[in-house]
Amino acid sequence: MNALSEALLTDLYELTMAQAYLARDMTGDAVFEFFVRKLPARRNFFMAAGLDQVLSYLETFHFSEGDIDWLANTGTFTPATLNAFRAMRFTGDVHAMPEGTLFFPHEPILRITAPLPQAQVVETRVMNLLNFQTMVASKACRSVLAADGKPLIDFGLRRSHGGEAGLLAARASYLAGFAGTSNVLAGARFAIPTYGTMAHSFVQAHLDETEAFLHIAQAHPRNVVLLIDTYDTEAAAEKVVALAPRLKSQGIAVHGVRLDSGDLADHARKVRQILDRGGLAETTILASGNLDEDRVEALVGSEAPIDRFAVGTAMTTSADAPYLDCAYKLQDYAGRPCRKRSEGKATWPGSKQVYRRLGPDGRLGGDTITVANETLPGRPLLRQVMQRGHRSASSPSIQEIRDYAQAALAELPDALRRLDRAAPYDVRIAEALEQLAQQVDRNT
Amino acid sequence: MNALSEALLTDLYELTMAQAYLARDMTGDAVFEFFVRKLPARRNFFMAAGLDQVLSYLETFHFSEGDIDWLANTGTFTPATLNAFRAMRFTGDVHAMPEGTLFFPHEPILRITAPLPQAQVVETRVMNLLNFQTMVASKACRSVLAADGKPLIDFGLRRSHGGEAGLLAARASYLAGFAGTSNVLAGARFAIPTYGTMAHSFVQAHLDETEAFLHIAQAHPRNVVLLIDTYDTEAAAEKVVALAPRLKSQGIAVHGVRLDSGDLADHARKVRQILDRGGLAETTILASGNLDEDRVEALVGSEAPIDRFAVGTAMTTSADAPYLDCAYKLQDYAGRPCRKRSEGKATWPGSKQVYRRLGPDGRLGGDTITVANETLPGRPLLRQVMQRGHRSASSPSIQEIRDYAQAALAELPDALRRLDRAAPYDVRIAEALEQLAQQVDRNT
Repeated sequence: MNALSEALLTDLYELTMAQAYLARDMTGDAVFEFFVRKLPARRNFFMAAGLDQVLSYLETFHFSEGDIDWLANTGTFTPATLNAFRAMRFTGDVHAMPEGTLFFPHEPILRITAPLPQAQVVETRVMNLLNFQTMVASKACRSVLAADGKPLIDFGLRRSHGGEAGLLAARASYLAGFAGTSNVLAGARFAIPTYGTMAHSFVQAHLDETEAFLHIAQAHPRNVVLLIDTYDTEAAAEKVVALAPRLKSQGIAVHGVRLDSGDLADHARKVRQILDRGGLAETTILASGNLDEDRVEALVGSEAPIDRFAVGTAMTTSADAPYLDCAYKLQDYAGRPCRKRSEGKATWPGSKQVYRRLGPDGRLGGDTITVANETLPGRPLLRQVMQRGHRSASSPSIQEIRDYAQAALAELPDALRRLDRAAPYDVRIAEALEQLAQQVDRNT
Repeated sequence: MNALSEALLTDLYELTMAQAYLARDMTGDAVFEFFVRKLPARRNFFMAAGLDQVLSYLETFHFSEGDIDWLANTGTFTPATLNAFRAMRFTGDVHAMPEGTLFFPHEPILRITAPLPQAQVVETRVMNLLNFQTMVASKACRSVLAADGKPLIDFGLRRSHGGEAGLLAARASYLAGFAGTSNVLAGARFAIPTYGTMAHSFVQAHLDETEAFLHIAQAHPRNVVLLIDTYDTEAAAEKVVALAPRLKSQGIAVHGVRLDSGDLADHARKVRQILDRGGLAETTILASGNLDEDRVEALVGSEAPIDRFAVGTAMTTSADAPYLDCAYKLQDYAGRPCRKRSEGKATWPGSKQVYRRLGPDGRLGGDTITVANETLPGRPLLRQVMQRGHRSASSPSIQEIRDYAQAALAELPDALRRLDRAAPYDVRIAEALEQLAQQVDRNT
């Protein structure tokens, strides 16, 4: 069998609808927008992420011969459809909020304008990519805010939802402000700093804990971080102190110790004392073990002497809100604005733009969602990023995105920086958009 | 740059630990076991899944030249390590519970016996694959039990955590008893039945709802399922009735309608009446829209005339429990049993086996976890599935796994079939294992 491609990573109905559109020559320009309907229970904002992967997908979109063969064998598709699929490339325009932008419910963060069959067929994967990284970046921001400047490391790969999730969670958390990841492939693919310590198994595989510390230090001398909770945390800290002179004589410093269980604040205080008394004042303490933003905030608040935090599963799975209530909706077809009116799921019609005003303190002051061709005071958040299937300009580097995201977080009002739900941010619908909705409803 | 491979999809510490093991010739056989520490809040059992992907990963494991180049450039690895990595293949044995087996906390579902560096390096990806599919299968079972025989379809790709998650969630839910998926690539890759309906955008792109129904029916005549909630559900059902004779004259039957919003039970009753009155008694009703096992159970309990359910996001993300508290722990190295004693995270040492007894009613009667070389009454759950890096026998087909899983669910006692937490299932630690743990603790 010929190889199957990412183009098949879609819902079957996208392909049968495309067949119907093609059969009826409904190939006029469609406008679809991606937005999130509402905030999860304890969230105050979202951070946009995943655009780079969406644009790569669109730029390279095509069905392989293996895809076409498989589709032909289903008996569902006509020869005309299969030929059209074989030739199909994405030739549309994309407007989007840059990755790292903060946004709020009902604000479109991506707008695709493309011939209807194309815009439909790419729906599923575009949503899949944007939902996930936006969800993770939005979650990771909370740990960044809670850590109050202390570095955070992504340790989430083992419990992320498959390989791509682990890879893209490392990317999304890094752009949201994490210092790096344990994920080697993410480091290689996205030029993200990688971090590693040691596992309990390493200690267990040795007959003696001190010997295990010696061996891992010699094998990874540039970044020695010793895991000290396998048997007895404080006893292991004493062993580290006893071993340090021998390592020093070999030119190896103990950069850090890692705590992974028990009362982390209490262990950190005791271990800090042991290390300081033992002349290891430079040795840092890394805490890990089922951490999330709430535990990070509590540990920072307790003034426990923890220097760095590893956050894993809770962040990469966005455990308190493992999906966004996101949608990709047709807002205009062939110049005719439209909208869905399903109960509880109505949308605003037409191509839209979002304007953001800053308050006198330089913090977010309020957003307005309006029709795309109206200009309002403030900063327009959606920019053109793809024209006729090609990126409009070179995409920002991950460092640039990360800097942009940090600047965005600095604009958050204090109330919205808290981990618990605050009064909602002021997002208004412009009169022009209200009028368009009424007009659409009259015509349907 | 040469291509990077799945072998890099691991935590950095696996590779630095491997370097230390290799440097010390610590290449004796290690035994690692994968298990889950505890049940999520509302769960009563787990279903094992993902073994086939784990075995494929192990069978094909190797670092690409691109991987080696990248690792060399980090400066962390010695030439000797890089050469060892270049030659590294997985040559170990694997014992596992077959996919579809039900299991409980602390029962190992996978045991890897391999030279220590190999068993360590594969840890992260093995966990990543087993955690995810086991989590989804365990979640999907709940909808299967709640649906009480009515077919379920996976619609979760768009909000699954990346592409691999969508693909493997389709597989895991199918083996747990779902009827199929909307995910085309999953259908092609795993020979899973695919299902598709139509989207609201399709209706909106047309000026007239009836015309939209006509067009999609003509484009997908073998499986016409019309989405009727875009504007007014009952009005659309009347349009379906009015259109049906025209479609019938073209040889096209309306197989179903789909409800996606509002009070699904109420809409289903009204729509059923409209369809029946209109001579469409054969037309089925499919319900979708943020469904999970609780909503499925309530709809089935209400005796709403819904024939099939599409369950998406809640299932593919396992929204109430988006990760398992799973672990992959060293239990024996070079013939010496060992265990971790970290606070709250202690494990049972040594290679283990699980024996299952059935009660007189043919339902699960109790499990015992013991050392691997003890034989107890009941059925041993772990079997050898890989020998020296090769599968022991041809793996079961997905249909065989699905049948096995259905037989396993049939053995569940009624209390454990409920969606809410029941009294815990009886899992005992055999005396031989207790004694081994005491002996290990004395020797550490």
